[in-house]
Parts: sequence; C-alpha cells; structure tokens
Amino acid sequence: MDSSAQPSSSLVTGTVALKWHGTSLELLDQRLLPVREGWITLVDAAGVAQSIQDMVVRGAPAIGISAAYGVALSARHAGTGGWKSEITTAIRELSVSRPTAVNLFWALQRMEQVFDTCHSLAEARVRLADEAVAIHQEDLAGNLAMADYALEAMGLSVGTGDAMPISVLTHCNTGALATGGYGTALGVIRKLHENKLLAQVYADETRPWLQGSRLTAWELMRDGIPVTLNADGAAAAILAEGKVSWIIVGADRITANGDVANKIGTYSLAVLARYHKVGFMVVAPSSTVDMSLQSGAEIPIEQRDDIEVQEIRGVPLAPEGVSVFNPVFDVTPARLVDAVVTEKGIVRNPCVKAMQRLFG
Amino acid sequence: MDSSAQPSSSLVTGTVALKWHGTSLELLDQRLLPVREGWITLVDAAGVAQSIQDMVVRGAPAIGISAAYGVALSARHAGTGGWKSEITTAIRELSVSRPTAVNLFWALQRMEQVFDTCHSLAEARVRLADEAVAIHQEDLAGNLAMADYALEAMGLSVGTGDAMPISVLTHCNTGALATGGYGTALGVIRKLHENKLLAQVYADETRPWLQGSRLTAWELMRDGIPVTLNADGAAAAILAEGKVSWIIVGADRITANGDVANKIGTYSLAVLARYHKVGFMVVAPSSTVDMSLQSGAEIPIEQRDDIEVQEIRGVPLAPEGVSVFNPVFDVTPARLVDAVVTEKGIVRNPCVKAMQRLFG
Repeated sequence: MDSSAQPSSSLVTGTVALKWHGTSLELLDQRLLPVREGWITLVDAAGVAQSIQDMVVRGAPAIGISAAYGVALSARHAGTGGWKSEITTAIRELSVSRPTAVNLFWALQRMEQVFDTCHSLAEARVRLADEAVAIHQEDLAGNLAMADYALEAMGLSVGTGDAMPISVLTHCNTGALATGGYGTALGVIRKLHENKLLAQVYADETRPWLQGSRLTAWELMRDGIPVTLNADGAAAAILAEGKVSWIIVGADRITANGDVANKIGTYSLAVLARYHKVGFMVVAPSSTVDMSLQSGAEIPIEQRDDIEVQEIRGVPLAPEGVSVFNPVFDVTPARLVDAVVTEKGIVRNPCVKAMQRLFG
Repeated sequence: MDSSAQPSSSLVTGTVALKWHGTSLELLDQRLLPVREGWITLVDAAGVAQSIQDMVVRGAPAIGISAAYGVALSARHAGTGGWKSEITTAIRELSVSRPTAVNLFWALQRMEQVFDTCHSLAEARVRLADEAVAIHQEDLAGNLAMADYALEAMGLSVGTGDAMPISVLTHCNTGALATGGYGTALGVIRKLHENKLLAQVYADETRPWLQGSRLTAWELMRDGIPVTLNADGAAAAILAEGKVSWIIVGADRITANGDVANKIGTYSLAVLARYHKVGFMVVAPSSTVDMSLQSGAEIPIEQRDDIEVQEIRGVPLAPEGVSVFNPVFDVTPARLVDAVVTEKGIVRNPCVKAMQRLFG
C-alpha cells in the first residue's frame, strides 16, 4: 500500500472531509460550513488533536481516521533517540481530544498495536502511515459495501436500467463529511444517485445543530445530488404527498434487539414512516452495534446544553433562562425499523434472533 | 359599555398584545420578542394600519381587533365637515394592511355596518368605539368559552380538587399574543393552570418562524406558567416518555369533514399522538370552520419564502441557493383529531355528520 496516497481518490469521487498527503493531513474546516469552504493543513499530532477538539472535523469515523493520521505524523517528527516516548505522548494527546468518540479510541488502539511491534523509528514511520491509510481505506470500503447491501434491501438492482428513480428523506449528516469519504446513510443516497436511481433527497434541517442544512445540503449540492431542504416539522407533509419511498438514517448505537439510538428527531421519522407505509432503513458500520445492551432502554439519553435551542450562532431565539428539553438522540424501537444495514450485511425486521445471526 | 375601558382587564389577567385607552391603542411590538418588551402607542388609523403591515401585531384575531380600534380612532380625528369620507378612507386603508387575514376583513365589515347607520360624527365616535370594544370583548369571551369546553372534552372538572395535574404539548403561538388576550389552544392551557390542573407545557419551537420559542415560551414564562421548550424533532421523545396527556393546537382552517389546516408541523404531532395514544385537540374560534370546503384536500397549501429555512435573522444556516420545501401549514385528517373545540361547543371524533350538527 502506498502510504502517501489519498485512498478515497481511487475508490470514490465527491466531497471529502480529509486529505492525506503522506507528510501532512488536510482537514476541511467544518465550522465554516455552509458559508465558506476552508482547509487546514496539519503537519503534527498536536495540530490534529487540536482540530478534533475544536470540531474542525466531526463525525465518529472521520475523527477516528484523523487521529490515526495524527499518530502517523507524530512518527515523522519523532527523533531517533526518544521516538517511542514521543509517539506514546502523541497517542495520549490524541485520545483526550474528544471524550466520548468510540471510533477515536478504536482507531488509536489499532495504531498502538502496530506501534508496539515496531523495532525502529524507520519501521514505525512506514507501518504507522500504512495503518492509518488502511483504517481510512477500510472505512471507505465499509461504506461502499453498506451502500450495496442497502440497495439490495430496497430491492433495487444496479445497471438494469429498468428501475424508476425514487425519492428519499434523511436526517442529520452521515455523509463524506462524517466518514472517510462516502458516507453511511448518505453513502446509500450517493449510490442511488450514481446509478440514476435517485429522484430527490429531502434533507431535514435537523435542529438544534442543523447538521442537515449546514452539512448535508452543502455536501449534496456540491456533489450535484438533487437536494431539497425542509424544516423537521415538514417531513410529515412530504410523506403525506406520497413522494418518498424510503427514510434512510444513520445510527449512534444499535442494541442486541435492533433498537436504534440516533440524532434527536429520528424516532419521529420512524413513526411517520410506519404510518405512511414508507420504508425505514438504518445504515451504520457494524462497530455501531453494541450486543452487550439488551435494548434501547439501557442507553442513557444525554441532555445537551440549553443554549443550542435558545440561540443560533449567538442570536437569541427564546426568552432568557427558558427551560429546555434537549436530548442529543432518541431511541427508535426495532419494530419500526425495516432494515439495519452494515458492511456485514442486512438485518431485515431486526429482532434479537435476526441481530444474533449477523452480529452474535 | 364603557368605550374607554380595556375589556381584558375585567375578564382575564396575564399577558396582552393590545391595550385600548379610549383615545389611543397601545400595541406590544411582537417583532422585538423574545429579547425585549416594547410598546407602540397609536392615535390614528394610519398608525394602526402601518403596525399591522409591519407585523408589530400578528395573529388573526389580534389583527382584527386592532383594525377595529383603528376605525374608532379615525372617528376621533375626523372633522365635522368630511367625517364620512375620512372614516371610509381609514377603513379602506386598514383593509389593505394585510392581504389574507380573514378576521381583518370580518372586523372591518362589522365596523362598517355600524358606521353606515351613524347620523352624526358624535354618534359615530361613540358607537364605533363601542363596537371595537365589543369585538375585543367577544373574542375574549369566545376564548374563555373554548377553554371551558376544552376542559370538558378532556374530562377534567374544575374546582373539585381531585384531578391530577396533566402535562400538554403545543405548537406555534395561539395565546394572548395572537388574540384579544387569553388565547385559543393556549387559552385552554391557561385555564388548566388557573385551576391547578397543569403540570407542564412542552412548547415546540415551531420552525421555521419559531413562534414557539419567540412568542409562546415568552408569554408562558411571563405569566408564570411552567413551560419547557423543545426542538420540533424532540416532541416524539417527549411523548415516548409518557408524560404528555394531550397535544393542544390551534387551526387556520377546519373543513366540513373535520380536517384541520394548521401551522406546519401540526400533522406530524397528530400522527405521533395517535401512535402514543395521547389525545389530540384542536381549539379555534368557529370563524375558522369553513363548511364550504368538503375536506383538507381542497385547501391550497401556500409555500413561503425559502429564506425562512435558509436563514435565521440574517444568519445563514444553509448553502446559498439550496432548494427548500417550506409550506406554511399542513393538513391533519379528521381521523387523527380527538376533538375540535370552538366557542360553540365540542365536536368529538370529527366527521361530516358531527361537524354538521354544530356548524350546519
């Protein structure tokens, strides 16, 4: 594997959130979106850690990949004398850049395992860069596999040319901006578009953080994928018009019975999908599946800061001090999910048994 | 009737959007909410017309009442010579202040009917002021009657002290700020609070215009009614927790079969209410019922400006030029409505027959 190559360029086209140049990592500054596209070039682990902390890059897979490249960069700068302690320090620094990102710890653990078996700095430089590229590449390949499975789950075959394009609705951002370069749920939508199977994407703006308007709409417009933005409350009216065939979303955690924790607003869409007889599909890497939890009831619901609902970018929207209910995600019960799709395959009508077959 | 008195003060306490002083009309400048409470004093019809046009005052009933007071003010300033043409001009000026507000035309028509039977300026001054106060008073009395019927529809009896307080969820603003001073759906919530039957109000922020955060949360906090604000997408999670007994909303139009057009996001709540076995009640003046329309399918759905979703108060939220689906309201089918409540009474499980009995 060529550790200086950007893996995404060989696999996919379209928007990317990170570019690896062998001696530096470029990150799209997502804080500036959708107003401006700016890139930050990082040449060491400290810079990468700072960028993760400052949310230049967000989305669990993209954070994990960035951190892995951060470790590779630390090896480039390490001196022959203290290289082991320098790289160890870099890994520790990267691991505290975000407190709760599971992919971050997972990626760093993988990098550490490689590092532990390196016998020289020269070897570490090559193998850590290779491993980071591999993590990136595997994320991309996983997204592409998910997209294939998702089309199969929807009963759409690629290349026959006889399928009518469909419209879909999505929530939050699960695209190239959140991953190694293609997307999970939004990767499925890309795949539909690439195969002329997509009529229109409806994107929920996704209050309170507006990932839908700030990121998803930007990413889809940039890649020429037809997108229409809507307030979250308008999704039901879109479904009532009968135009949407599938709602496709990502996941933060999927439990052993197929319950799905995802961005607040997802559960509402699942209820609406069932009422309107529209398909509801969850697309996520298998690392999202947590078979140690029996059901969604075991997932603690984190409340985020009131200010997210009270203000937008410093502009007050609500009376000062108003009480706010602002959970970061909600739980969709498995009975409302038509299919859970990961890179390992499809679980239709998820339940304990069906989940066990693929993830047991 | 004393035409210099503020009718609301004798009937209700709490927030008001307009105050009549006999020689002037004071309007709460709702454009400044929730940041600042500012009042504008108007002494003539031109000022009232301008305030309606500039959305100092909004909400169909509040607009109608303001316009009526505007006509009363025009009589005060008219000269003995040309008083008839001066008042006629004022009525015409007020009638074009907002293009589509039905209550505006209805209120002005009532004022014109009184004006047409006046034989002197002195008589017009007294009778037009009396009529404006009567319109205001009737709106308030109607709201109070609705609230009584709504509690009956919920099976709650006032004053027995044995009912457990309930929590409710509402959407948009249907309160004192939109009416003569008590509210329709929000009037019901006031009534619950006044009778210690209210535990908590959950208020949808109501994107894109944010009437929930800007107006409803402000109004409820100001009047000491316990309110918790939530992003529209979080309503489902609130219902899933089992805390809410009723969803109570207003209406823009109710058709002969009981279908309800109301602020975008209402239909979503109705589907969620049914799924969670939560009551769904529509509270509106009988003037909202349009028996000439067979069903909601006959109501044209107006699309509002894309900018409402693309920006908030000039802050860009979405990529420039993104396509937007932004209907001002949606239609909730009668089968999802448990009760339509007006000042004329309750229609349970609305259908053509049930609607005909009360409004035929």
